[in-house]
This record gives sequence, C-alpha cells and structure tokens, in this order.
Amino acid sequence: MSLLDTVQTPEDVRALSEAQLEQLCVDVRDRIIDVVSRHKGAHFGSNLGTVELTVALHRAFDTPRDQLIWDVGHQAYPHKILTGRNERMDSIRKRHGLSGFLRRDESEYDVFGAGHAGTSISAAVGVAAARDIKGQDFEVIAVIGDGSMTCGLPYEALNNAGHTDRDLIVVLNDNEMSISPNVGALHKYLGIHKKITGVRTSPLYNRIREEVKKMVHAAPRFGTLGEMVEHFAVRADDAMKGMFVPGMLFEELGFRYVGPVDGHDVGALVRTFEQVKKMTGPRLVHVLTKKGKGFAPAEADQVKWHAAALFDKETGAPLKKSSGGLPRYQQVFGEALTALAAEDRDVVAITAAMATGTGTDIFEQAHPDRFFDVGIAEGHGVTFAAGLATQGVKPVVAIYSTFLQRAYDSIVHDVALQDLPVTFVMDRAGIAGDDGPTHHGGIDIGYMLTIPGMTVTAPRDGEQLIGLMKTALAHTTGPVSIRIPRDAVPALPRPVAEIEPVPYGTWETLRQGKDLAILATGTMVLPALAAAETLQREGVSATVVDCRFIKPLDEAALERLFPHHGFVLTVEEGTEANGFGAYVRRYVADRWPGVRGATMGLPDAFVEHGERAELLGELGLTPEGIAARGRELLGKPLRKLAETA
Amino acid sequence: MSLLDTVQTPEDVRALSEAQLEQLCVDVRDRIIDVVSRHKGAHFGSNLGTVELTVALHRAFDTPRDQLIWDVGHQAYPHKILTGRNERMDSIRKRHGLSGFLRRDESEYDVFGAGHAGTSISAAVGVAAARDIKGQDFEVIAVIGDGSMTCGLPYEALNNAGHTDRDLIVVLNDNEMSISPNVGALHKYLGIHKKITGVRTSPLYNRIREEVKKMVHAAPRFGTLGEMVEHFAVRADDAMKGMFVPGMLFEELGFRYVGPVDGHDVGALVRTFEQVKKMTGPRLVHVLTKKGKGFAPAEADQVKWHAAALFDKETGAPLKKSSGGLPRYQQVFGEALTALAAEDRDVVAITAAMATGTGTDIFEQAHPDRFFDVGIAEGHGVTFAAGLATQGVKPVVAIYSTFLQRAYDSIVHDVALQDLPVTFVMDRAGIAGDDGPTHHGGIDIGYMLTIPGMTVTAPRDGEQLIGLMKTALAHTTGPVSIRIPRDAVPALPRPVAEIEPVPYGTWETLRQGKDLAILATGTMVLPALAAAETLQREGVSATVVDCRFIKPLDEAALERLFPHHGFVLTVEEGTEANGFGAYVRRYVADRWPGVRGATMGLPDAFVEHGERAELLGELGLTPEGIAARGRELLGKPLRKLAETA
Repeated sequence: MSLLDTVQTPEDVRALSEAQLEQLCVDVRDRIIDVVSRHKGAHFGSNLGTVELTVALHRAFDTPRDQLIWDVGHQAYPHKILTGRNERMDSIRKRHGLSGFLRRDESEYDVFGAGHAGTSISAAVGVAAARDIKGQDFEVIAVIGDGSMTCGLPYEALNNAGHTDRDLIVVLNDNEMSISPNVGALHKYLGIHKKITGVRTSPLYNRIREEVKKMVHAAPRFGTLGEMVEHFAVRADDAMKGMFVPGMLFEELGFRYVGPVDGHDVGALVRTFEQVKKMTGPRLVHVLTKKGKGFAPAEADQVKWHAAALFDKETGAPLKKSSGGLPRYQQVFGEALTALAAEDRDVVAITAAMATGTGTDIFEQAHPDRFFDVGIAEGHGVTFAAGLATQGVKPVVAIYSTFLQRAYDSIVHDVALQDLPVTFVMDRAGIAGDDGPTHHGGIDIGYMLTIPGMTVTAPRDGEQLIGLMKTALAHTTGPVSIRIPRDAVPALPRPVAEIEPVPYGTWETLRQGKDLAILATGTMVLPALAAAETLQREGVSATVVDCRFIKPLDEAALERLFPHHGFVLTVEEGTEANGFGAYVRRYVADRWPGVRGATMGLPDAFVEHGERAELLGELGLTPEGIAARGRELLGKPLRKLAETA
Repeated sequence: MSLLDTVQTPEDVRALSEAQLEQLCVDVRDRIIDVVSRHKGAHFGSNLGTVELTVALHRAFDTPRDQLIWDVGHQAYPHKILTGRNERMDSIRKRHGLSGFLRRDESEYDVFGAGHAGTSISAAVGVAAARDIKGQDFEVIAVIGDGSMTCGLPYEALNNAGHTDRDLIVVLNDNEMSISPNVGALHKYLGIHKKITGVRTSPLYNRIREEVKKMVHAAPRFGTLGEMVEHFAVRADDAMKGMFVPGMLFEELGFRYVGPVDGHDVGALVRTFEQVKKMTGPRLVHVLTKKGKGFAPAEADQVKWHAAALFDKETGAPLKKSSGGLPRYQQVFGEALTALAAEDRDVVAITAAMATGTGTDIFEQAHPDRFFDVGIAEGHGVTFAAGLATQGVKPVVAIYSTFLQRAYDSIVHDVALQDLPVTFVMDRAGIAGDDGPTHHGGIDIGYMLTIPGMTVTAPRDGEQLIGLMKTALAHTTGPVSIRIPRDAVPALPRPVAEIEPVPYGTWETLRQGKDLAILATGTMVLPALAAAETLQREGVSATVVDCRFIKPLDEAALERLFPHHGFVLTVEEGTEANGFGAYVRRYVADRWPGVRGATMGLPDAFVEHGERAELLGELGLTPEGIAARGRELLGKPLRKLAETA
C-alpha cells in the first residue's frame, strides 16, 4: 500500500508529517506516469510539473473552504488525484469518464471549470468579491501558467484586482512553456530575470528597495572613504538588479510579489504559502516549475510530451507506431499553405500558440519570415491579421474553432466591417473528441453566419480544403472562413498544383435523385452520400448536394433543386439552432412553401467528451443516422396544411 | 481668412513655420468648438485634448506615407480637419455625412478604421510586419488612450511587439480618463508617477539608470568624503524614483520609453517625435493631455463633456433643455435594477466603462459596494461575473451589444458552459444611431442564439424590461440575455413592485386575427401591432404575437397559432441571416409545411450611421414597412407546391 492510497481528500494531505509530503509527491508523480502511459492520449508534461505545487496548495490551504481556481486545467491531474478522484483516473478523457479538464459538476474542489487559458484570475476576483459582499472569510487562490500570461484576459483581471486591495492570491506557475515555447516580451523578461538572479526565495525585491532607500537617506556622513563608496556601490547595484525582477510588473499592477520559489521543493512551497496567507490584499507568488519534471524524456522534449499516448514507463518509447494511414486535415492544410506561399510571397500564416496542432508548424519550417505565432492571444492575432491585410498581405489565420471565439470582436470590427481579405481556418470545428465541451467547435457556423460580409465554407475532404484555400486567397473583397475537423481526410488529395479553386459561392450536386434533397456541408457530405445509397436500396431516390459554401447560399442551385424535390434534409456538424440548416431552410420556406424538411446537426446543448466517431454516432451524424432521418421525414404522416395553402 | 483655411492636407502643416503651428492649434480648437456646439451631439472633450498631438504628428511624420493609426477614433476630429475633411465637418455623424469615427473608405489618412477601443497597436504591428515583409520603409505610429490600456488587447499587442524588435511607435495619449474616469491599477500607477515627478520631457529614466550604473561602477575612490556621499545619495535617489516611472511597465514589455511629454506643447511634441523617429525598434511616447483642453466648462467636468450637444460657445450653456419626455430604456433599467437590489442583497451590477451610458450609474449611487466598473475589459467583466455567480451572487452585466462581442468566449466558456445564472443586459441592441456601424448592435441575436443554454429575450417596452429582469434574476439554471435599444421607452412603466415577472419561455398574443401571424420581438412588437391595425383596414386579419422570448421558443403558442394561420411574418431588430426569424421559421417549416412566410430584420450588411428613426425607416422596420411586407406576403402569387406536397 502506497502513501497515496491513504489519501482520499486534501484533509488527509494536511494530516501527513512534513517528511511524508515528499513521498506523497513521488507517489502522485508515479500515478500520473502510470495512468498516462497506459492511456490513448492525455496531457502529461504539465501535470508532472505541478505535483509539488498541488500538494503544497492543498497542504497550506483549507480546501474546499479556501477556494482554489486552476487555469486551463490540463495541469490539474495531481489535483484530481488528491481530491477523491484517484480511483477514477483510468477513465480520464473517456466517454462517461473523468474530464481531462476541470468541471464544477465533477467535484466540489473544482471551483471553476476551465479548458481555455487565462480565465482563472478573473474568476477568482469574482469569487473574492462575492466573499466580501457576503461577509465571509476564506482565501481565494488562482493558479495561472506563464503561457496564459500572453493572453489579455489575465492582464485585465490583474489590472482590475490590483486596483481594489481585495484579498486574493495568484500563483504564477512559470514553466517557460505553454503548449509550445512561449513567445512575447513578458516571457523573455521572466527568462532574463532568471538568468540574472537564479532561483531565490528571498529577499523580496521590495525589501531590497526599502533598504537601499533607507540607507541612502540615512547615510552616515563619516567613516572610511573607500568602504563607504564600496558599500554604496554594492547596494546601488543590487537596486539596479532589483529593477529587473519580474515582480516589478506585478507590483506595478498593484500586487505584492513573492518569489520566485522552486516549484519542486514542496517544503519551500508550503512555507511560502503559509507566509503568504498571513499577508493581505492582492498577492502574487511566482513559482518556477519544469514541464515533464521527474520523467527524463518529457523533461528533454517538452513540446512533444505536452500530451502523450501509450508509452513504455521505463523508456518513454511509444508502444504503438503511427499507423501511416491517411493524413490529417491539419497536415493537408499545413502542406498546402506552405506550397501556396511558395508561389505567392504575400501569403502569411498566423496562429495563436497552436502551431503543431493546426499544422502551421510545417509552414514555419519553410517560411519562418512569414509565420507568426502570437502566443495565446487570439484577439491580437486577428487584429494583427487585419493590419497586414490593409497592406495587401494575405493572412491565413489558423486557430481552433473554440478558441476563435476569443477573437470575435476582432473578426467583426477589425476584419469584416472593413471588408478585409483575411482567411480563417477554423480547426477542430464540430466534435473535437476527448477534450470535450470546452474544445468542441460546435457554434462557429452560427457565430460566423451572423457576421455581415463573412463567407462561410466547409470542405468535404482534403482536396476541397485546398480548393477552398485557393478560392479564399483569391477573394479580395472580404474575409472567408473554412472549417475543418480534428480528423484524417477521407482520401489522399492530389498535389496542390493540380487542384482548381472552388468556384465562389457554388454547390456541387454529387448525386441526382428526385424525392429527397439532402443538403450537406463539410464533414457531413460523404456520410450523406452513403446514406443516399442506403435509401436507394429502399426505393427512395435522394439527391445529395455538397454545400461547401454555407454563406452565400448557391441560389441558382436551389432554383434547380426546388420545387422538383418535395423534401429537404440539411446536415451539418454544427449546432442546429441557427446554423446552416436554419439559414437555408428559411430561404426554401420563403420560396417553396410545401417543401417538407428536417434539419440535422449538433444539438442545442454542450456535447460531452469521448471519441469523435463515438460521439458522432451517438448524435446520429452518420450514414445510418442520416438515412434514418431521411426515412422518417418521407414516412411521417403529413400534417394538415394550413387552410390557406 | 484663418490659418486653418490655408491647410488642406498635412503637407500644408509641414510647410508652416514653427511659430504658425501654435496658431494652427488655436484655429483647429476653435473649429471643433464651433462644429460641436452647433451639432446635435458629438464627441468633444477627447477631441479638444488631441489638437496639439495631431498637429505635431502630421508635422513630424510624412503622412500618409508614414502610417498613423488612431485608437477608437472619437479623438480624431483634429485629424479629420487636417486631412482634407474640414469643409465636411458640419456633416459629422449625420446620415451620408462624415463618420464620427475612423473609416478606411473615408480617407487615405485613415489607415485603420476604429470605433471600439484597444485595436490600434495590434493593427499597427500588422502594418509594420507587412512593411517588413515587403521590404518597404516607412514609420508606423499607433496612438492609444490610457483608457484603452485597461483592455487586454493592447497588452497582447505590446507583449507581441516588444518581443520582435520591429520598428514601431506607440503614442500613449494619457488624459487619465476614458469616457468616465479610468479604473484599474495601471491608471493608479500612471497617476502616482505624475504626482511624484511632475511632467518632464527629459532626461529619460533609462538614461538616468545608465548614468547611475556607470557612476557606481566607475566611482572614483578619492575626493571629499561628504561630497561623494552626497553625490551618491542624490543619484541613487533618482534611481529609486526611476523605478516608479511609467516607462518601467513598457520597458519590461520590450519598448523603449520616452516621456512623459506635455501634450499641449506643440513644439515639445514635434521635437520629441523628431527624436523618436531617429530611434529604432518598438518605442513608446507617453504624452499627457487634458480632456476638454481650451474650453473651460469641458476641462472642469470631463465626464459630462465627453460628448456634447448644442451649446453656447461662450458660456457652455446648453441651448436646448431636456424635453422631459419619456425616460430612456437605460434609465428604466438602472432604476429598476437599483430597486431590485434593494430587495435582494445578492444582486450586483457590472459594467465596462459604460456606467453613464447603460444607466448603471444610478445603481452605483445607491449600492456602491455592489457596483463594479471593470474598465474597458468586457472579457474580464463577464468571467468575473461567472466567478460571482458560483457563489450565489446574482450578477447583472450591462454592456453595449456591440462591445459584448469582446467577451464572447467568456460568455460561452465561463458562463453558459457552466450553467451559471448571469444576466446580460445588452444595451444599444439593434440600430444605435449616429455612432454608426461600429456601434450598432445588429448581431447579438445571432451570436446568442447559437450558444447552448442561453435564454435570449427582448422586451417590447419598459414594463416588460422590468418583468424580464425579474424573470432573469429568478432563473437559476443558466444565463439570460435581455436586449434593449438606445431609445426612450414607448410608455411610462408602473412602479417596479407592481410588475410581475414574465412567465419563463412564454409569448403573449396581443391581437388575435386569422390570416397572418406576425411574430415580432422586442422593439418591433409595437410597430407590428400598428401594422396589424393598418392591415385590418384593408381587410387583412392579422394576429400579433409578442415573442419576448427568442429562445426558447414558446412551442405551445406555436401549436395554437398553426395551422390556423396560413402566413407567418417574423420581425426583429437584428440581422435576419440567422436570427429569430430563421430560428422560428425552421420550426414552423418542420411542423407545418405549407405555411407561407417572410422574415424582416436588419439586412445582412453593416448599416451606416444616421438617426435611429431615420435608419429604421429606410430599412422598413416601421408600421408602414411591416404592413407593406405583410401585404406583399399575402398577395404574392403562390408558387407551385412541390409535387409531393
């Protein structure tokens, strides 16, 4: 029986002796390595980095009475292990299992759900304000990574919190990395500091500052000349160094700065937090951790080991070779963009800390001078793209659908309103899979459709993706969005040079029938085609149209389709509330009342985590599901038509 | 003939003698006072504050070759006056006249459009990157107010730009105000600094720093004891002061800091810019200006004079007394929220630098401890609200519809995904009037509808607003949004205590007819009712339903309406692409094919500026327009129904 087996809740952590804490950290780290090594895919490096920090936080603070708010959540496995979820860790990121992120409905210790970066300080300020309004008394602790500090939201929160003198503790978990190495001046600045001074837990720079000040004012006017000057020189030099400590930035924003503290010295962490608890007002504790700590391969290659799948615990060797099957949409995109940029010097790629995920790392290799990773700063990335577009440069912004929500006003106000030709490639659109509801891209059709001047598209396969990219880059009168799934392409595309642009605003009829018109877009086109084959065997003749342009609608195609079809079925991998289906169905209803229809898409609800194929199956977004809905539509008893019809 | 009359373009500014620049400033300031005093409403204080800055920028830089990017744009009247638009200034903010903000399509000197705060640095980084990619050579200058610095986007941009060493000049126009006095630690910090050191144009703090450093290291080991120590003391003290200069923050983000400079000394400004031009890399010039400068009443009350309407140029006295008519929605909202909060200690109000605009200033007076103005930081405001809501506090977030776009991910990821009961009051929804396309709230129905779990509502009058507020505060299972226009309520509401909550998810039939069902929401309900009266006189019997809940739909009401009506007309003051109409029309088409319909709303295009009533008239969103569409719908020849129907 390990020490960890005796720990069910943070209460048990607080009952251990100080000496036992280090053993607990060993056990927690082993548990993470064990779980993730046997798992088909989970966050790894970030979780190894927060073991001591998590133990120390639950040791020093009275959780859940004291409220602990983690940012992002992909570093919260140690927290899950220590808060009653150790036994369920094997289920993590599996359907009906534990979430890979934080969830309020999973544990009372998860004060605030997360998945996107940068929210913890804002939420913590809210919790602290509520506490003060209600006259309660507990600590509120936000933990945030240095990667999240490239994002504007924490700055807004720090600026607001630093203004109020409200009791609040921010722990900056500084591992010098987000998913990829961080970019941005703040990062450089933190790095410079560490080189200059190394890790030190004390003295605080403001103590130095005070001392130097006092000394200067109270300087004795006598003594040995050389000694005095020497003394001043050393002290003033210290003061100069003090000007570089990372604390300045936070002190300027109104926080009391403490640190940096060695994030893998659990004793030092506990002592620091105990001290910080005694202070009041906004406090920031700077903790230095190492991604992948305690697992040599992960320490050595932190980008690769940000997440991991099935590996040998002893060697780190992967247990399953890559299948060598069809390439992913991301790879097709990255390679195609690289090729297009080789032909056109004006093409540039922008991403927001998602180079590897989006495939733009391929572009970076080939065209480093035209590649921009702006950090976790989607808003800036998009307004930056707008600035580029004013000069005739052709920016392609590759951001996950769910994260592009963070740049919504930049898309509307800076790009669309000015008719600037920016191409948005929305990655992980639709069901993202085991990352779950924070990462699914369910609503981008809805939020893009409503923006005037925005062209909204979705390819059915890799070749059409390339065709739409060509169309987008040639479209100079406004922005174009292209949504792609987190999936492999259904077929290997031809070389980029051989693929024609998709004619703007056109649909393609892939199958001509006469009873039912299936209007499908993006990932649902091929399943719709398969569904039509099934229906054909049942005697139902279905037309299948590839609606690669969601907006504008291909009105000429609609004129050809109706009224020759009495039934219309729309299918999209996006929320059906006001997505493609609602958009086209209104058009059809305006012109051809009497056409009966149904709309398929993601439900008007947040979809849980699980494998992509598994979830699409549950949602009926499969050939079988589409065929069933088509059957139901044609078979259902006709309602009495309105009297006047 | 004034000196200004001889200035048509910045080229003419550059041809003046140095002595003439001050006279030009006097002329420009007089012109602004003259235009705005005769105007029904325009930005004022901010424009008086930037006169010298604008003259100096166009003097020192070679515009439009050098690219000048203003933030927000409500301080750009001097810029408009000096860039060929002086003669058209009287048309500002009028239909078909000059925009009150910046527009790329208005002048080649408007490099980047604006209207929302905080975008200029991001855009400038983009322009500078494009210049470097294309191997061109010109200066890029972003001007940003200190108010905009409470917003996360400029921080993202500074952090990104400071990392790159790209040539870029940021001018921080520090007037200590946004629309209202600024909040946030950065502001406090800038303020402290000014108290400590006063305005000084030199020496730069980093020069001091360098000097002290050099001196300390190279300190002679001889000389008179007292003198030496004295010398060191003074120098070290300077260094200590240097630690407080605002430059630190920007230097830490990688910018070379210059300033502060007196923003009303045109000579000093020109000299500073000339020097700054000679430097390279990212530079920040800190300019101190005064809102309302040169017009005593506006200097004395900067909040009141942020914008102004028809006043006496000599005295500042308003020329038109307030009409004393019906209260504005904002006042009804502010007073009702204040009353509801008096009954319920858990109700709090949050806004983002829009206290006066949204009417939450009324709440602030009564409940200062429960009022939170987070600055121009909508994202933080919403995630902060989510944090409050986790503790059982009931946050009401009052933000203009167009600015709430800036918090989109916070709404989705932090509020809706966690089913947190936050009430959003979206002000200036629909046509905002003479502020134009950057300020209209055209797309909130679309972007809210698509969010799972979001209740979307719109009141038809002040009383229903209060009823919906009560409903929202009682709705504990998720967020509710309420959209209100920038307008007076159509009738004086009864006291708050007498008004019942609107039953959740219900519609109200205001008029029973039989031919046509008009489904209207929010501001369009009463015009629809008037349209029905018109149609009645023509023999058309229309039912009018107040669809105060846009989501969820009142399915029971729909069951009662159809199939007894053969025609449905939806009307909303929101984009019709995928708004209420598309949402309900799909539902109707699913169940009652054969019902013929039409949808009215804002066009799928950005609407220009003009008076609200004027624009609604042009768009047909009036009783006459609705009646006409109803007539057209009923009268149009029936299309042949689909064969199978």
